[in-house]
Amino acid sequence: MNRPDAPTIAIVGGTGAVGREALALLASRETPCRDLRLLASARSAGSKIEFRGEPLLVEELTESSFRGIDLAIFSAGGTISRRFAPLAVEAGVTVIDNSSAFRMETGVPLIVPEINGDVLTDWPGRGIIANPNCSTIIALMAVTPLHRRVGIERMVVSTYQSASGAGAAAMAELEQQAREFVEGKPFTTNIIDRPYLFNVFSHNSPVGEDGSNEEERKLVRETHKIWNDDSPRITATCVRVPVLRAHCESINLTFREKLTETEARAILAEAPGLRIVDDRANNRFPEPIHATGVDEILIGRIRADSSQPEGRGLNLFVAGDQLRKGAALNAIQIAEFIASRGLTAQPAAS
Amino acid sequence: MNRPDAPTIAIVGGTGAVGREALALLASRETPCRDLRLLASARSAGSKIEFRGEPLLVEELTESSFRGIDLAIFSAGGTISRRFAPLAVEAGVTVIDNSSAFRMETGVPLIVPEINGDVLTDWPGRGIIANPNCSTIIALMAVTPLHRRVGIERMVVSTYQSASGAGAAAMAELEQQAREFVEGKPFTTNIIDRPYLFNVFSHNSPVGEDGSNEEERKLVRETHKIWNDDSPRITATCVRVPVLRAHCESINLTFREKLTETEARAILAEAPGLRIVDDRANNRFPEPIHATGVDEILIGRIRADSSQPEGRGLNLFVAGDQLRKGAALNAIQIAEFIASRGLTAQPAAS
Repeated sequence: MNRPDAPTIAIVGGTGAVGREALALLASRETPCRDLRLLASARSAGSKIEFRGEPLLVEELTESSFRGIDLAIFSAGGTISRRFAPLAVEAGVTVIDNSSAFRMETGVPLIVPEINGDVLTDWPGRGIIANPNCSTIIALMAVTPLHRRVGIERMVVSTYQSASGAGAAAMAELEQQAREFVEGKPFTTNIIDRPYLFNVFSHNSPVGEDGSNEEERKLVRETHKIWNDDSPRITATCVRVPVLRAHCESINLTFREKLTETEARAILAEAPGLRIVDDRANNRFPEPIHATGVDEILIGRIRADSSQPEGRGLNLFVAGDQLRKGAALNAIQIAEFIASRGLTAQPAAS
Repeated sequence: MNRPDAPTIAIVGGTGAVGREALALLASRETPCRDLRLLASARSAGSKIEFRGEPLLVEELTESSFRGIDLAIFSAGGTISRRFAPLAVEAGVTVIDNSSAFRMETGVPLIVPEINGDVLTDWPGRGIIANPNCSTIIALMAVTPLHRRVGIERMVVSTYQSASGAGAAAMAELEQQAREFVEGKPFTTNIIDRPYLFNVFSHNSPVGEDGSNEEERKLVRETHKIWNDDSPRITATCVRVPVLRAHCESINLTFREKLTETEARAILAEAPGLRIVDDRANNRFPEPIHATGVDEILIGRIRADSSQPEGRGLNLFVAGDQLRKGAALNAIQIAEFIASRGLTAQPAAS
């Protein structure tokens, strides 16, 4: 904070689950930041949120909120992003958008810094940078190092997604259902329209004509954009499980070229942002409670897939904090990446 | 009950989760049964369990328990089965064994009546019939009708398995953890050696040298035995989720011959023991809470897999009650199948 050459950062949606996580990460990391502003709905405006031991006033998000801001992290959903992100860009702000609103737009970089941060090297600065969907980020952190080495021909993914992806209110409702279960009361189902505790259900996003839901389509098309390669064939089944804030994914891979399990393990051990948790003797593998509050993606169940020709198939199981690497942390890493290259230091003259 | 030409049935492990479900099913179904006996450990012996409105005495399981019994359903785990099932067979009893102890033995039929009940037609009677593993039964109920039509070349399965597969005590511990969560107490982890509520973990069975756990190996080898065909290539990732008593499975199929989504749907609609739950407009698909206490396997998310050549791939999501079709119901159906063919009516002279 208070570094004069550092950007002034705004968090739009600073009172939501992702916004609060971004705030916590900014407080604990060395992110260069001259000043921090929290923008939220009129309903939240006026409240105060603690930041590095001091109360920070939540301001109402309006069309004129962006003066003096260099970099804004949007985490208030697609509708807010569609309306306010272009206004922010007009005001000279670099927007890192956590919604899906602009992800697939031509010219909008879709970035996981460890994977394709280099895309930003030639980026002219200012405009919108999109943060990928949580399940895409978590899968690609694990799979990209292998894709780089031998090429992924096909990927079959089944997800075990937490409540946090549906927001702080969904997390609270899941906890509420635990209380209602104990008290023998009917479950409150205001946010998720069915019992969530002790249940599993297909991801609560719209299902298209091909039978895939929006979460599944995101995983396919965002992967192709991030890899800048449409050739890997991907199918996903996205499912919610009664977990608070970390996603798991069961991933089955088909390689273009041979890769042994030992070689895959060596590649993953060296890959940034991954932590191997693969203790077969003690049956310890990635679990969402161990990924919670952790920056790294946990990866385990690394094993050759004997249903494919030798060296051509691999199974993996990953767990990643949906609010950290799946959302806020990745956005902050993008902010740090571009701030370190001076892409946000000079707001447009106004 | 009290039909003189019907078999006398014993349930071994009558106080466990599967045993109690078997008892409830015998009470509600038209299963021919002259007399019913409950055999359990010395610890449970002497207690009484209600059956069709009358108290039934739990007897201690001993080596001489099997006199006068025609058919015994074993659901007390592999150790008890290995010790007592051969003694029961010696006493002329037909054993339906729910454990994995004898499943892969040559000469022991491994039966899902809807799939390979015909194997019993030529069966000499008496001896052990094995009940397959829960996740195998649930997957094969969905997949076999398609396999019969076009042949499964490859199957990739990820499971979402409930507490009931680990027994009644695991179910109780999961519920206990909900109480402890609400009370802010540390979780009791006597049965499952880690937090289960709000968590997901790799199936708690031993992991072999190839990295697969025992549950995954069962799914592969039992499928091959039930289909009497080792050629389908299968890989599975078996995972526990905090659900009480129904398993879900995400299944990705590769067909040998072309099969459209529409054709697959028509085949599944006519298959015995399945109920299609596939409402895309309202996002209603199989959920474990809806499979609980239900005989049918729920099947949905039926959609062509665009990552494979047209007509060659399909995704499915199934939910089935682990205690019913995954265990007790299948065993009772085997009992009914063989009783209807008179294979158990005459105990060996003794």
